Amino acid sequence: MKTFNATRISIIAERLIQDGIIRILDETGATGYSIFEGGGKGGHRVHPAHRPSIVEAFSIVKIEAIVSNRAIAEDIAEKVAAKYFADQSGVIYLHEVEVLRPDKF
Amino acid sequence: MKTFNATRISIIAERLIQDGIIRILDETGATGYSIFEGGGKGGHRVHPAHRPSIVEAFSIVKIEAIVSNRAIAEDIAEKVAAKYFADQSGVIYLHEVEVLRPDKF
Amino acid sequence: MKTFNATRISIIAERLIQDGIIRILDETGATGYSIFEGGGKGGHRVHPAHRPSIVEAFSIVKIEAIVSNRAIAEDIAEKVAAKYFADQSGVIYLHEVEVLRPDKF
Repeated sequence: MKTFNATRISIIAERLIQDGIIRILDETGATGYSIFEGGGKGGHRVHPAHRPSIVEAFSIVKIEAIVSNRAIAEDIAEKVAAKYFADQSGVIYLHEVEVLRPDKF
Repeated sequence: MKTFNATRISIIAERLIQDGIIRILDETGATGYSIFEGGGKGGHRVHPAHRPSIVEAFSIVKIEAIVSNRAIAEDIAEKVAAKYFADQSGVIYLHEVEVLRPDKF
Repeated sequence: MKTFNATRISIIAERLIQDGIIRILDETGATGYSIFEGGGKGGHRVHPAHRPSIVEAFSIVKIEAIVSNRAIAEDIAEKVAAKYFADQSGVIYLHEVEVLRPDKF
């Protein structure tokens, strides 16, 4: 089977900032995304040395997008990190995946 | 720690076709799968140039399976794409993972 | 964009053992984690040759963590597998991802 490389970007964030993140995805060139609701423990704080020892459960979303252009994934990651994750908890990670059709992303 | 390579296949699709996708997984040799409900924006259309500019939220599922045999993952991907994603939105992607026990998949 | 390698560990398990798994994550050094609820088919049994042919839907959780130290991910995987997956269904897989900030994990 012929496959094509693409980059998956995953953003885990508090639900409150979901709409703002999606706006960045739309504006930066993601052609689609998925959202999954979950829970979790923070700890992914900017300054882990100063995070409270009492961890709180909070409502999170995981937002995923696949883009064929790696530069778009990086652009999304940088914009979301700069706008939201300087002072709020959140995680962004990238990894390479294979897709069947490059023209969909 | 000794780990073994396996392939994770992820399928994001409208909920309506969940049962059909699971049937393909079962018939093609996946020994198990997980299903997560979510939302998202389409856009992963077959013909992106013609997709409506007004994007709709729709109910989606993400179906995941891990198979130790890469050919099975590819077979699942091809069958799902051929049956459902010629005229419906959906995403299939593969990537390599490491598992602890090869005999479980 | 400068990124840093990290390891993502994903654990799919029955909901009943969620708290025990999270305790292992906390004790072993994960700084955070996410939990997503889902469904699925078992089959990821220890002895696939002996699993019942009638598969049951069951309530599962997917627990994810990202750690910058690969050894911590392996340690978590081994502890969870040893404590829970000798006699219960469950899946653990690892894969490498890229994160923007190494100091958060």
